[in-house]
Amino acid sequence: MQTPRPGEFEAIERHFAPLAREGRFAAFGLRDDAATLSPRPGHDLVLTADALVAGVHFRAADAPGLVARKALRVNLSDLAAKGARPLGYLLCLSLARDVDDGWIAAFAAALARDQAEFGVQLAGGDTTSTPGPTTIAITAIGEVHAGCMRLRGGARVGDEVWVSGTIGDAALGLAVLEGRLAAPVDARKALAGRYLLPRPRLALGLAAPASGVACMDVSDGLVQDLGHVAALAGCGAEIEAGLVPLSDAARATVGGDGRLLDVALSGGDDYELLFAVASSRAPALAAAGEACAVPMARIGRLVEGQGVAIVDPDGARRRLARGGWTHF
Amino acid sequence: MQTPRPGEFEAIERHFAPLAREGRFAAFGLRDDAATLSPRPGHDLVLTADALVAGVHFRAADAPGLVARKALRVNLSDLAAKGARPLGYLLCLSLARDVDDGWIAAFAAALARDQAEFGVQLAGGDTTSTPGPTTIAITAIGEVHAGCMRLRGGARVGDEVWVSGTIGDAALGLAVLEGRLAAPVDARKALAGRYLLPRPRLALGLAAPASGVACMDVSDGLVQDLGHVAALAGCGAEIEAGLVPLSDAARATVGGDGRLLDVALSGGDDYELLFAVASSRAPALAAAGEACAVPMARIGRLVEGQGVAIVDPDGARRRLARGGWTHF
Repeated sequence: MQTPRPGEFEAIERHFAPLAREGRFAAFGLRDDAATLSPRPGHDLVLTADALVAGVHFRAADAPGLVARKALRVNLSDLAAKGARPLGYLLCLSLARDVDDGWIAAFAAALARDQAEFGVQLAGGDTTSTPGPTTIAITAIGEVHAGCMRLRGGARVGDEVWVSGTIGDAALGLAVLEGRLAAPVDARKALAGRYLLPRPRLALGLAAPASGVACMDVSDGLVQDLGHVAALAGCGAEIEAGLVPLSDAARATVGGDGRLLDVALSGGDDYELLFAVASSRAPALAAAGEACAVPMARIGRLVEGQGVAIVDPDGARRRLARGGWTHF
Repeated sequence: MQTPRPGEFEAIERHFAPLAREGRFAAFGLRDDAATLSPRPGHDLVLTADALVAGVHFRAADAPGLVARKALRVNLSDLAAKGARPLGYLLCLSLARDVDDGWIAAFAAALARDQAEFGVQLAGGDTTSTPGPTTIAITAIGEVHAGCMRLRGGARVGDEVWVSGTIGDAALGLAVLEGRLAAPVDARKALAGRYLLPRPRLALGLAAPASGVACMDVSDGLVQDLGHVAALAGCGAEIEAGLVPLSDAARATVGGDGRLLDVALSGGDDYELLFAVASSRAPALAAAGEACAVPMARIGRLVEGQGVAIVDPDGARRRLARGGWTHF
């Protein structure tokens, strides 16, 4: 049953103003035109923005709480890659016409939960109607010690390629959710959960070295994203397929099916951290993983040339026809 | 004729990366996950976000350059109200399926023009497709001297209400553009232009006093927005209709039609600055207007009670049934 939707200002007052109460921003209960932030001396700010569109980045029927948390977390994942401590975010929410008050309430309640978990606050934004699909644009703000944002650029031929956690769960999970893949019963929930609710690697992001390491988060697929790191370095990359960390659920689902392994390697929504690091610095990176209890795996290296090659356990080298997800 | 749309990364590289080159943010050619900003010592940052949806906030057929500039300028207008100097913005652009490369190119070229005019840069964002209407969410960032953001709150009963420029042009202009209003030929272009291309009052925003003054920009209609200032102050407000500054075009269009005057008073998209100021501080505010060559007009005052009353030249007091624009 639909609960009537409140007016714009009532929705902000009731559902979103409570999210703006505590934190580093002065947000004036969302009753002003803007929020203000006093930067900490000796720190830089880090800013990133990502939008999610129903039917493109999430399914319109997904639970509003999961949608809210995914929208926030994909932005926090970018801050994690940069080694930033998240401070807050601004939210532009364009609501489809069938969204009711219950949906908004659940959306906001889930944000409250994630705010507590990640130490961020809502600092502002905009709420509007759209005749199209619900669209959520978030700008997230974090801070780093001055000059210490970890970059995506600066990698070199010979660097080792490392990745956190496990790869491919979300892509397999989406296929399960869409009925395109019959995964083992035990695996279905784990895989779908990885698609529906990313876990930004913020602790690892803070613990990992800020210099001598190139980093980005894996959002558009491992192969495509590693391609970006390599292209910025003016070189290519190799992934040893047998070294790519798969979860038990992914392993049971992929089995010996090379096509499914490629889904794992090229699908999006992992939200793990991808590093290129000189061998001499790799122990520091591995130690950061240990300190945060995040598994880290060396999966390949940067090589002369261009593009990303997959090296199968039998030594065969190949390239994926489709490198990853593009939102166009 | 449609020009084929480029891929996501090509569109960013070709059209948007050039917008990120110069300014206070290090944006890495939009090839990193985030931008970084080194705050100036002794300054606070001011952050605001507003989204525009085709069919809601602009007409899908509007020229892409006007849409781009409006999307940026409505955010700059919020910074103007806060007395902030704009630094840059992040852009989440969700493009309808019929948007082609020519549209994107014109959109980006117009942003380049406004960036030069207002001294801002693109600092990041996201470009995606949507099955719905084109949606533009912008987060703008500015700076003020520490502790000097001008607030919307803090006004008091007895404060004078002042407004910059002229009121109602944009609302009348929209009615003209939609064929709902037959304005004099000479007036049509001037009114439509005010709807299509706001002029954020940044110079006035910087020159006006930061303290002892409450301020917001007039975006949802004078009556509704003044109602927000009054509500925050826990009081009501009176507008003397005869004192509200109308442009020649608006005056010629309204004539003696009280209904059209109410459209001017309650319509949105003025993007003028609205101040509540103690009489003792009003001369400083008027002087700021003079220094910037922006006409300033005293139009009413804050009074005991609640809500906004219109006082007509004959002394009759009335309230508008519909106070202003809501986006729900």
